[in-house]
Amino acid sequence: MVPEYEILTPDTVPAYIEKTPRLDGIVDTSTLEVSEVGDGNLNLVFVCKDGNGDGICLKQSLPYVRLVGEGWPLTPERVIAEARGLAAAVDHVPDLVPAYYALDEDNYVLAMENLIGWDMWRIQLNEGNSHPGVGAKLGRYVANLAFYTSLFAVDQQEIKQRLAQAVNPELCKITEDLVFTEPYIDVPNNSYVDELIPEVEGMRADARLRAEVGMLKYKFMTAGEALIHGDLHTGSVMVRHGEGGGECKVIDPEFCYYGPVGFDLGALFGNYMAARARAAVLDRPVDYQQWLADLGPETWDAFEAEMRRLWPDRLDKTWTDSFLDAWLAHVSQDTIGFGGCKANRRIIGLAKVTDIQELPHDDHVKAATTVLRTASTWIRDRADLKTVAEANKVFDEVSAEVMG
Amino acid sequence: MVPEYEILTPDTVPAYIEKTPRLDGIVDTSTLEVSEVGDGNLNLVFVCKDGNGDGICLKQSLPYVRLVGEGWPLTPERVIAEARGLAAAVDHVPDLVPAYYALDEDNYVLAMENLIGWDMWRIQLNEGNSHPGVGAKLGRYVANLAFYTSLFAVDQQEIKQRLAQAVNPELCKITEDLVFTEPYIDVPNNSYVDELIPEVEGMRADARLRAEVGMLKYKFMTAGEALIHGDLHTGSVMVRHGEGGGECKVIDPEFCYYGPVGFDLGALFGNYMAARARAAVLDRPVDYQQWLADLGPETWDAFEAEMRRLWPDRLDKTWTDSFLDAWLAHVSQDTIGFGGCKANRRIIGLAKVTDIQELPHDDHVKAATTVLRTASTWIRDRADLKTVAEANKVFDEVSAEVMG
Repeated sequence: MVPEYEILTPDTVPAYIEKTPRLDGIVDTSTLEVSEVGDGNLNLVFVCKDGNGDGICLKQSLPYVRLVGEGWPLTPERVIAEARGLAAAVDHVPDLVPAYYALDEDNYVLAMENLIGWDMWRIQLNEGNSHPGVGAKLGRYVANLAFYTSLFAVDQQEIKQRLAQAVNPELCKITEDLVFTEPYIDVPNNSYVDELIPEVEGMRADARLRAEVGMLKYKFMTAGEALIHGDLHTGSVMVRHGEGGGECKVIDPEFCYYGPVGFDLGALFGNYMAARARAAVLDRPVDYQQWLADLGPETWDAFEAEMRRLWPDRLDKTWTDSFLDAWLAHVSQDTIGFGGCKANRRIIGLAKVTDIQELPHDDHVKAATTVLRTASTWIRDRADLKTVAEANKVFDEVSAEVMG
Repeated sequence: MVPEYEILTPDTVPAYIEKTPRLDGIVDTSTLEVSEVGDGNLNLVFVCKDGNGDGICLKQSLPYVRLVGEGWPLTPERVIAEARGLAAAVDHVPDLVPAYYALDEDNYVLAMENLIGWDMWRIQLNEGNSHPGVGAKLGRYVANLAFYTSLFAVDQQEIKQRLAQAVNPELCKITEDLVFTEPYIDVPNNSYVDELIPEVEGMRADARLRAEVGMLKYKFMTAGEALIHGDLHTGSVMVRHGEGGGECKVIDPEFCYYGPVGFDLGALFGNYMAARARAAVLDRPVDYQQWLADLGPETWDAFEAEMRRLWPDRLDKTWTDSFLDAWLAHVSQDTIGFGGCKANRRIIGLAKVTDIQELPHDDHVKAATTVLRTASTWIRDRADLKTVAEANKVFDEVSAEVMG
């Protein structure tokens, strides 16, 4: 498949920047160094830095999934979805996302701030580094999107149009397949070490688990609550140390669409679980493990606090304070359920996480087993897990059992 | 507000039929008798019958709500939504809807079968007449729409487009306001006899009830499950006696949009409740009251049986049989909750029902009190009401208490 638009290369990027009016003056193209750093899953990503230290980042969609090659076509329109998600965040949490420079809809190029000096959070977590306060910032990110793009802040007539414009069926299908479907059936995309076979077979034979995963998939496909990020794992978060503690920027919202608020929180929770399992088998310092264990509650508490702070500004005052309590309980249950689905897929299905995958074999088996059992309990029993703290307890119990 | 299209009158209808190609030959316009029978809420409805006994029905949208006059503008596009809902039903349950002849999008006229010899079900219920089997047919109607317009039968890419096309924000807003908002606050649209003031004030002071009504409103506004009818009360059902028992045709799907499946069933349940309360205070024959009491279970059982019959044809086989059980439990809870909301609004808010409204004063108070208390319990405690039979029991207990 040959794209019908100009595919950028490191060599052509300077000329592209020069001819794009909205990018004029952001960098000095005569001294620009360009490298392509897309981590391989979907897109081309050009990181550019000039002699003055100024930067720009260009992200270009290809008409297929890069990870698996041209055999899996995928609309390049996804960069338009990403721009939509970025723009929404720029409006409400500008400190938590890159600056947004331009969208070129003809060539499917999104231009944004180059995050020089920032690192991918997953890699930092893998190395045992903590960035205090990042969990709370992510809770604030989710809350602001949840509030300002939803019925709470958008007129009822307007939001139906926004929901219609923001449909993102091809990207949603990837999530539907990889998160909710494939891990629970036998397909070539799956892979796992032999020691996990009994775990995986047990999950597939568990009718109740399958039904609950199905209900979460159904909710993912039908609940148009807010413009959610759609892929908010720890690889979609860039971090650095700032004066007041850890800082973060959320990137890659190309899966964004009107979906359930708990899905973004669940993505974080599922990935926190993987980070915890890794730290446990590697016997990281107790303080670090405790910091990881607290990430979930920290994220949730910040989400809840921000929702309560914004709540007086809601459009519909007949949604009472008691409604907010009920709504938060509903999001909490979704978060725990989606968190379980996000964790399981990272062990069994396509697109694994380095947290667990790159461990020594025996550690990998223990960590993966811990994640699968915890995640499946979260999914199955989420109605009984009233708080994030209770969900954390499941991890503690399972890891004690598996890791001894 | 003067519409910019031709507003039909009984005098102009024959010429309109003659000049509309798709209506050619359905009736003999030279002998046509035309009467306007719109029951007042929203539209012009022309019932036409010729000398041979053939008929046609024309429904024309006005650019405002007829019930309250030109002060409440409302898109005439609603007739296009109605045609969409009718067409979907014609495809899958043609025996349960009028034949669909033509849609004139320029003049907002929908032409369909004239249901000569059919009566509005609500009026028949008010008079104490039973039409055995109609409840089951309505369950089959809801199941077929729920299956064939949803993810169960429509491709994932396609359904996102359909959902986007079928947004119906102005009509949805009427439901949001009249069903979920106004009955629980003090607005001029509400009215009720003095004896009900303590009931209504008690509902408004009940934080838990308000929160649960809010959650049901939120679900109505965010859950895009299937193309639902959207206004399936007993005034939207025409009935007659056939050879095999009661027959029915569902009309008026102009509120249709992608919403929660339980909303249509809930609309029926809320109206069955009103019919039961009326029959109880009027001391109708025991058999008749029992037939009314069985309508809810009859409708649900037929809905469930039809879903199970269609289930093997679902597109996504990873939605297992256990998922279907979980999904039915979810729809059951929605049904009971929405049923409560639909019942309350008919007592307190704009657009009452004759079942309760036209009773002698003391009977009215008893019936209305029974409905409000039963409905509020349904809303508040729906998570504990596992079956329709349990919901029915609440009515029995409340009516015994209120009516002695």
